Amino acid sequence: MQIARFIRVNSAFIALLFLVAMASVAHAKDLASWQDTASRQAIIEFVKKTTKKSSPDFVHEDERIAVFDNDGTLWAEQPIYFQAAFAFDRIKQMAPEHPAWSTTEPYASVIRGDIKGALAGGMPALSKIIMASHGNISSDDFSAAVANWLATAKHPSTGLPYNKMIYQPMLELLDYLRKNGFKTYIVSGGGIDFMRVFAQEAYGIPPEQVIGSSLQAKYSVVNGVPTITKAPDLGFYDDKEGKPVGIYQHIGRRPVFAAGNSDGDYQMLEWTTAGTGARFGLIVHHTDAEREWAYDRNSSIGELNKGLTDAPTKGWLLVDMKKDWKVIYPASKKN
Amino acid sequence: MQIARFIRVNSAFIALLFLVAMASVAHAKDLASWQDTASRQAIIEFVKKTTKKSSPDFVHEDERIAVFDNDGTLWAEQPIYFQAAFAFDRIKQMAPEHPAWSTTEPYASVIRGDIKGALAGGMPALSKIIMASHGNISSDDFSAAVANWLATAKHPSTGLPYNKMIYQPMLELLDYLRKNGFKTYIVSGGGIDFMRVFAQEAYGIPPEQVIGSSLQAKYSVVNGVPTITKAPDLGFYDDKEGKPVGIYQHIGRRPVFAAGNSDGDYQMLEWTTAGTGARFGLIVHHTDAEREWAYDRNSSIGELNKGLTDAPTKGWLLVDMKKDWKVIYPASKKN
Repeated sequence: MQIARFIRVNSAFIALLFLVAMASVAHAKDLASWQDTASRQAIIEFVKKTTKKSSPDFVHEDERIAVFDNDGTLWAEQPIYFQAAFAFDRIKQMAPEHPAWSTTEPYASVIRGDIKGALAGGMPALSKIIMASHGNISSDDFSAAVANWLATAKHPSTGLPYNKMIYQPMLELLDYLRKNGFKTYIVSGGGIDFMRVFAQEAYGIPPEQVIGSSLQAKYSVVNGVPTITKAPDLGFYDDKEGKPVGIYQHIGRRPVFAAGNSDGDYQMLEWTTAGTGARFGLIVHHTDAEREWAYDRNSSIGELNKGLTDAPTKGWLLVDMKKDWKVIYPASKKN
Repeated sequence: MQIARFIRVNSAFIALLFLVAMASVAHAKDLASWQDTASRQAIIEFVKKTTKKSSPDFVHEDERIAVFDNDGTLWAEQPIYFQAAFAFDRIKQMAPEHPAWSTTEPYASVIRGDIKGALAGGMPALSKIIMASHGNISSDDFSAAVANWLATAKHPSTGLPYNKMIYQPMLELLDYLRKNGFKTYIVSGGGIDFMRVFAQEAYGIPPEQVIGSSLQAKYSVVNGVPTITKAPDLGFYDDKEGKPVGIYQHIGRRPVFAAGNSDGDYQMLEWTTAGTGARFGLIVHHTDAEREWAYDRNSSIGELNKGLTDAPTKGWLLVDMKKDWKVIYPASKKN
């Protein structure tokens, strides 16, 4: 009996140890690529206080909406927005069907690989490139073109496929929020149907939770086939003041958590954190010239000026990529 | 031992009986307000074949998107669209702040309660009424106005609150689909933010799964308060060819199940059922002049002409309200 009792008691003890170990493992996994700094603690504290039923800051699960910018927040955006790289590559690919482009700007510069020359015409030139590469195509053909590009194109400086230049700490943040009942959305100035091609696989975000800029689209039956065609005209521009509007039209409720990295996200953070109850605003500050890029107030891509100035008074968390993140991309997890 | 064994065996038998009874009860509850006709069977067969993993028609849960029109499909729409009734009531309510309206059409007619007179000006008149009653207001104030109207207004012939004139059999269909892993959406010509006020409570459909027509909206900081303001200009018209476009922009995948009741839903049904694999198109046919209204080809509200002609060749189920539904509204469950 003594031995039996010893085994019983110790079995229980071992089981208890095992449970404690399991719990520690589960806990350690949350935000594992974040350094144990104030940034990580602030996120965890916010999630705890909004998900604990007895907390005065408790947020009902239906209302746990978290919105994330994409370019510079979930994936990199240098030296040019990745979607612009897609547009340039697509113009080159389409060039044989458009012989006039070889002598017409901005296409001629794009075809020669002269990005600076192509963009010398400013916004009208960029707009022409976007419309020519994204418009007058069925939604299905466009998705296929994006998928094909992602599968083959490589980033000029890292040599990585573009959809591998996503931020491991942000993937963990998305997971952590979802594990705690948050519904995660992308709200980006990028093209809604461009992002939908890879958002599920890259971020675990389904197409219906991707909000972005869009061209006008029309529905018609083409040769007997019901078809959505993207028109070469802007429909909605999901940047700056457009972001709260996009959230309003697509989600219909105010988020409780918003993350961005540039002044294009300012209004989204402002709208989110002006709501009653606990709110969280997060800005990814690109401070790591060695592992990624360092830029803020004076960058033509991802300018962060007003947001950097106002973050302290607005109570927005400035995430310092260099100090707060152990790794940048999933591929570098072992670094 | 004999007795003990008898009890054991019979306990097991009773437990088994209980489980069988439970299963029958659960099964009988599905679509309980639907008569046991071919319509009910067709729906059940579709759900079974798309949700059983070994079925050749199996649809992965992520792809189980079901879209429903609202007016005439989930709630009634006679003698005028309920949102039009809201618009007229709101014009009357706003009249004291707009003295010029008492001598200006179409407002003067609305204020006098002369709907025919107000609509004599056709679409331009209706447009003026919609813009005046729905535009130049913050999103929060608009939601409050709709909620207040729903809580107080009564339908002219039934005397019911408008949000009680929802179709019990369709509520059960929504529940049945959701129970089987379908994500249910509203895709309606009605106003997106009008419907979002009651869709969760009435249908169990959250705001982010409501797609509808919208006015243009803008974001700005008004007296220090971040505000979404509805502009008095049409943003998106979610009817006819607009419905597949609305689905494309909001959901980003083609539904497998679509339900409507009028030719305004034709393109949504066409787009949905033209997809590969198993698809389901359903049309609620208003055939019950006694319990609801009977109308189709020649109705100015909810005209069903092309859809009624094409349903058999398209393979769309025509639901006969009179023959297929045991009850119409939740309040009449005991009829």
